[in-house]
Order: sequence, then C-alpha cells, then structure tokens
Amino acid sequence: MSADPHDTTATQLAWVAVDWGSSNLRAWALDAQGEVLARGRSGRGMLSLTADDYEAELLRVIGGWLPASGTLEVLICGMAGARQGWREAAYLPLPARLDDLARGAVAPAVSDPRLKIRLLPGLSQSGEAFDVMRGEETQLAGLCQATPRVSGLACLPGTHAKWARLEAGSVTRFTTCLTGELYGLLAQQSVLRHSLGHSPGEDDLNDPGCRQAFVTAVAEINSAPQTFSARLFGLRAADLLDAPLPQGSARGAQLAARLSGLTIGLELAGMADELEHEACITLIGNDLLCTRYALALETLGHTSRHLDGETAVLAGLALARATLSRASGA
Amino acid sequence: MSADPHDTTATQLAWVAVDWGSSNLRAWALDAQGEVLARGRSGRGMLSLTADDYEAELLRVIGGWLPASGTLEVLICGMAGARQGWREAAYLPLPARLDDLARGAVAPAVSDPRLKIRLLPGLSQSGEAFDVMRGEETQLAGLCQATPRVSGLACLPGTHAKWARLEAGSVTRFTTCLTGELYGLLAQQSVLRHSLGHSPGEDDLNDPGCRQAFVTAVAEINSAPQTFSARLFGLRAADLLDAPLPQGSARGAQLAARLSGLTIGLELAGMADELEHEACITLIGNDLLCTRYALALETLGHTSRHLDGETAVLAGLALARATLSRASGA
Repeated sequence: MSADPHDTTATQLAWVAVDWGSSNLRAWALDAQGEVLARGRSGRGMLSLTADDYEAELLRVIGGWLPASGTLEVLICGMAGARQGWREAAYLPLPARLDDLARGAVAPAVSDPRLKIRLLPGLSQSGEAFDVMRGEETQLAGLCQATPRVSGLACLPGTHAKWARLEAGSVTRFTTCLTGELYGLLAQQSVLRHSLGHSPGEDDLNDPGCRQAFVTAVAEINSAPQTFSARLFGLRAADLLDAPLPQGSARGAQLAARLSGLTIGLELAGMADELEHEACITLIGNDLLCTRYALALETLGHTSRHLDGETAVLAGLALARATLSRASGA
Repeated sequence: MSADPHDTTATQLAWVAVDWGSSNLRAWALDAQGEVLARGRSGRGMLSLTADDYEAELLRVIGGWLPASGTLEVLICGMAGARQGWREAAYLPLPARLDDLARGAVAPAVSDPRLKIRLLPGLSQSGEAFDVMRGEETQLAGLCQATPRVSGLACLPGTHAKWARLEAGSVTRFTTCLTGELYGLLAQQSVLRHSLGHSPGEDDLNDPGCRQAFVTAVAEINSAPQTFSARLFGLRAADLLDAPLPQGSARGAQLAARLSGLTIGLELAGMADELEHEACITLIGNDLLCTRYALALETLGHTSRHLDGETAVLAGLALARATLSRASGA
C-alpha cells in the first residue's frame, strides 16, 4: 500500500500526517514544504482496534518510511484520539481557535523509539445543543491556510455531516446531522431496499430522471420537513403502485435519488437559520458527496464552493504541526 | 401452539379467522357468535414463504381444527393477499367502504378439499400521495361493528404506522409513516445503539425519567421537525458528554425513550392537519404501543381512545364474512 519515500526522497521526508477515523486510516509522507512524497492506508480504524493495536497497525502502514536512526514526527487527527481510541485527547470546548488545536494534543506511549507521535483533540459543544466532532476540526483548520481568520459557514458531508459556524478563525458553534447513516440504513436495511436500485453512484446526478427526482425531493421535504416519515413509506408505495416518475432512468435509481434528496433536504431544512444570510457555503469532502450537497443547496437558492477533503486535512495537520514546532521552540 | 376446539366444541366451530402478515400469522377458531374457541400462531409470514408454502403452513397451525368431512371456511387478511403472497387480492381504490372489503376477496387454489379459503384485499391510494395498506383495513372495518357508518381519524401504530380518515363507514384517505421501522433501525443498527439501553419495554413510561424524556422529545420535534437529523446525533453527543438528563432511571433507558419520542413526535407533526379539529383519535393495536401514542397525542393536546388490535381484526373479519355469506345467498 505504501511506497517507500526513502527510495529517492529519504532526505526530503520531514513528517507524516495521519487521518485515523472509525473505520480506516490514511497516511501521507510529507516533505518540509508539505509536498506529498507517498501515501498509505488501512481499513482498520477505531471500531476494529484496541489501544494496544494502534502502534503495530501504524507501523504496518508507515514502517517503510521510518529512518534507520533518529525519530519521525507523526501527527494524527480523528478517532484515534477518542476515549475508545489509542489515547484520549480530550475535546476542546467552544469557541475553539482553529490555529491552536495543537494545544490539546497528547502523545501516546510507543515501543518503537523512532516514533514521535501526537494525537490531536476533537471539539465539543455543550449548553443548548450537545455535540462533538473528531477529525473534522482538522479539515476546518485547513481553511486557515488560505484565510487565517476565516469566517463563514462550512459543511462536511458524510456519515455524520458537520455544519460549523466559523468566526475570525474560531469555531463558535456546530451541528452534526445523522444524514449519511440514516440514508444508508434506509437504503440497505429498511423495506425500501426492495424498491431502490443501487445506491447513488458517481454519475446518477448526470441522469436527468435521477437529477429531477433528487431536486424535487429536496424542495418537497424542505417545505414540509414534518412529512419525512410519511414520504419514506411513499417511496415504497410509489413502487408498488407503479407511480409515474421522471423519464430517463430505471425506477430503482430514481427512487434511490429521491431518498437521497429527502435525507439531505431534511438536513438542509434543519440548517435554515444558519443558511439564511450566508453568501457562500464552503463544502469540504469528496467530489461525489459535495456535488450532491451543492445541487441540494442550489435547489434552495444557496451558493457553495468546494474544498477537497484530503487537501483540507493535510493543510490542517500542517497548521497544527507548525504550532507544535513553535511551542517546542523548534 | 393450537388447542383442538373439537375436543369439547367440535359442533360449535363455525369458521376460522386469520391475520397473516409479513412475519407471522395468527389464527382463531370461532363459533357462529364470534366467540374464540381456540387460537393458533406461526412465525412464518410473507417474507419467509413462497406461494406454494402457504397451504402447508396454514394446515400446520389449524390442521387440528379441520372437520373429518365437509369444509371449513377460512377468511384471511393481510400480506398473504399481496402479489408476493399466496395469491394476489388486488388493492381496492379509495374511497373504500369498510363493510364491503369482501368484494375484492380471492380464493387461492388448495389441495385439501376441506379448506374453503378467501383472501381479503388491501387498499391503495393514488393521486397526490401514493399509499397502500394490507391488513389494517380489516382492523378499521372492525370499527363498524359498534358504529356501522363510522367517521373520524384512526391510527394503527406499528412498524409502518397507518393513519386513516374515515367518513360514513368509508376510508377516504390514509397515510403510512415508517416510524416503527425507523426507530428500530436507529436503535439497533446506528451509532446510537452504543448509547441506548434496551428498547422501550412494557413499563418504561412508568419511569418518571423516561416518561419526561419521551414527552420532551415529542414536544421538541413537533415544534421543529426539520431538526430531526441533528437531534438524532444529539443523543449520541449527550451520552459522550454526560449531558444532564431527567432523574429516575438509567441514561440508556432515557435516551431510548427520547429516540422513541423523536420518531413518534415527527410522525405526529406530519399529521398535524388531520389532527387539528379531531375531537378524539381512535388508536388500534396492542396496549404497549397505543399507550405510547396516547401519551404523545396527549402531549400535543389531543384526546384518544384505544381499541385492542385483536378485537378489531376479529370484528373486521366477521363483518367481511357476513358480506360474503349474503353475497353467496347463504
């Protein structure tokens, strides 16, 4: 999985960035300028690891990058820093400065003396709406690369989509929606699975019928979010009764697009207050999902821009590393 | 499973009523006055049977009730009449008279000459909101026993909860909500399962903390249904951050009660137009679930009454049988 950056770039390797989530890890070998020298990944995340497993799993992925002598700095964000992870990096409370996430970093004990590891903390919100994030705060910090005291509304679509209000480089509040998980459960486990085609793929929004089904669903649920539960069963009934659907694609694919529109549209309806006066929402994540969210936002009259998720997390980890270096007087 | 009514009541057995759903069947041996002589049940429903399996499965449950000679009338409602069931009894369109469900009954072919079987149809709704029901229409017909030209709003809670508008003994419109299935998926399969205690049990609403958590959730989601997706993740965050909860019971049980309140409350929010001027809603089903719905309705200022589900389906099947008897000139 991991190319050996020492082959040609040994002298260039400066540090390793890792995004270690619930179900996988991604690692990047970086030079001092932040250029990616090599990539590694693994399908083992917090859900399948105990605290004692982390070092070995990390070495399996980045072991080839380690110097023969000396130490290698490894900076990790995500669920590896959860209470059930490698070692807990306690949540930072809001408001939280994005250029100062490193103040909550912790160093897990390691056996290999060449590893110098830091785990970044997540953010927590208490008060009216309890909420937590781990990993997304580092992607948000990536926004500070271009705009150090960034303000605005950012959305990170995913299994648990995050919406964050940024003010002068700090996160001041955020909301997590269970949207992606809800979609997955309904599409794959509920009675609706009998009526749906494959899950929305790369290009389902290029199909005119799917696109129309998605857009219509977003608009419908946004104007009547209370009908969510009834509209879900309506998908099944529409299939059983051969209800007319937009032209252009298979019924199952259109119903899947409609379900996607209902779940994302419900999320957007819930964010209406945040969206109201926002000139441009920043979407952070993979192309496929961000394109889907951009279309949903556009349907409701909102403009968005897209920042690639890998770019964001690497910029955020680099920012945290710079803070750590300054703090240690390096 | 099935006591033999011939032991002491052979001469009294008049017919057999069956409610055969997606995942089980319930059968009743009845005398001419509708008294239950014996009960039978099986855990095999439409989802685990092919058309060829039905007769054998029915005989396994009611075989002991069959007369040595002559025929036994068996009237069946539910998913056994679906396209994927024993034989399709096509949906009746709305408006549908509840005292005339039998006009859509079909007789599946059988090998045992003693069986005289009829499958009742379901109801379908097209136009603005496509919807279907199978089985619940027979419980609704049971309301006609006390009030032949019944009017009002009835709710049948369950995996797929049904709300039906009744006018002068007919169903004029209805809505299905995926509420029960949504609750089950979220409680058992989503990330929330890590934070929830056992599913709401017989007496969780007797616990003051659970009751308060349930009632609060119903009211919250009713006034802001668009926040459903965010409030779901909020359950998880409240657990991770040890958020304060009402006193009186374990955190997991209270979070389960809150999830139940959120899903039922979202359903009720969607039915607000139907509920608005309704003096008393009729709840049909088992005690546990109807008590839960009654409390949710009460929270929003609505009055309800309860009709036991078994009583309802038996009365509905008896009404359909009377129609069939008249039609055949018996």
